[in-house]
Amino acid sequence: MSYQQHQQLLETLHACMAACNHCYDACLKEENVKMMAPCIRLDRECADICHYLESAITRNSPFVSQLASVCAEICTACGEECKKHEYDHCQKCVDACFQCAEACKSIA
Amino acid sequence: MSYQQHQQLLETLHACMAACNHCYDACLKEENVKMMAPCIRLDRECADICHYLESAITRNSPFVSQLASVCAEICTACGEECKKHEYDHCQKCVDACFQCAEACKSIA
Amino acid sequence: MSYQQHQQLLETLHACMAACNHCYDACLKEENVKMMAPCIRLDRECADICHYLESAITRNSPFVSQLASVCAEICTACGEECKKHEYDHCQKCVDACFQCAEACKSIA
Amino acid sequence: MSYQQHQQLLETLHACMAACNHCYDACLKEENVKMMAPCIRLDRECADICHYLESAITRNSPFVSQLASVCAEICTACGEECKKHEYDHCQKCVDACFQCAEACKSIA
Repeated sequence: MSYQQHQQLLETLHACMAACNHCYDACLKEENVKMMAPCIRLDRECADICHYLESAITRNSPFVSQLASVCAEICTACGEECKKHEYDHCQKCVDACFQCAEACKSIA
Repeated sequence: MSYQQHQQLLETLHACMAACNHCYDACLKEENVKMMAPCIRLDRECADICHYLESAITRNSPFVSQLASVCAEICTACGEECKKHEYDHCQKCVDACFQCAEACKSIA
Repeated sequence: MSYQQHQQLLETLHACMAACNHCYDACLKEENVKMMAPCIRLDRECADICHYLESAITRNSPFVSQLASVCAEICTACGEECKKHEYDHCQKCVDACFQCAEACKSIA
Repeated sequence: MSYQQHQQLLETLHACMAACNHCYDACLKEENVKMMAPCIRLDRECADICHYLESAITRNSPFVSQLASVCAEICTACGEECKKHEYDHCQKCVDACFQCAEACKSIA
């Protein structure tokens, strides 16, 4: 598929990458960092794979579908972890992750 | 700086990454690929560093300024190379690269 | 799994990444670049995913298995393409890719 | 420079990437994660830039020197932070970071 067709997906991936990296940064500044350790870890995982998939789509990689499948799984795991925390940065991350997981599933 | 303040920069970097990866993909499909070899190479360099800087900004990296300085240089080199070719994908890449180089210089 | 247990896998991934990026560089310098276009594309895909998996393993990512499965598929595709060309850089890449595909399958 | 000439540098970069990602993983498992927050952040920064430079060298990027200069700075910052902590993973990271900083300076 052309990258024009994927414009919406690219925006969703970008939003998820940004939300995860922002959540990562914010978690590292929280008082109770220990509680946030799994969130920090998953935020990095999720930001990195969304980022990777974004680039793969724009360069017309033949492996977008397989990568999207893994990305959907990572987004879901990150969203589930963030759901446990009431911080604003976590709640924003939940929405971005679940939306991105759906978008990835649709092309996987 | 917060990632909100950098929203405009993020969009510029993202647009440049997408334009470079699209140009890379299109160059590989041209009849005269040999002529486009330097463009293919620089497109990858530029897409990758823009992508890297995007992630660095969103995770509030302490090294955004230094990375932006390198990114500006790579964007300029890629824009100069694309300027030599009349293909639509190259001309779009010129604009994206030079705009991104300026944006990067402003924070370097 | 610990990153010590994966020392061998890391070396295999690293060797594959280096072989693919070297092949990419060499293909761009060949006389008949057009013929090498699919190889250039797959070299980048393969180098990038091997690289990504290397980092994921060293940071103890919970998603190593899924990523290894995609990596195995990309390594195989890149090895199959390189097999078509007699250049030394392509033949070295074939070996690195198929060895890496096997290593990835063993943990997928 | 060819990637053969850079074999030693590649190993140093790879060792630093692995040490930083291992330290990142270990820090997230420590009792006092809050104390390790700056280390976690710098470990990711340092692992990512070493990783990036490794790939740039193997693909014969024209921008290795500029990237190495930024990498040296990030390695130094990460090493200085890890020096504050007596954990084995931090002390190993100190050595890897300072060695990598020197190697990067020599080509910057």
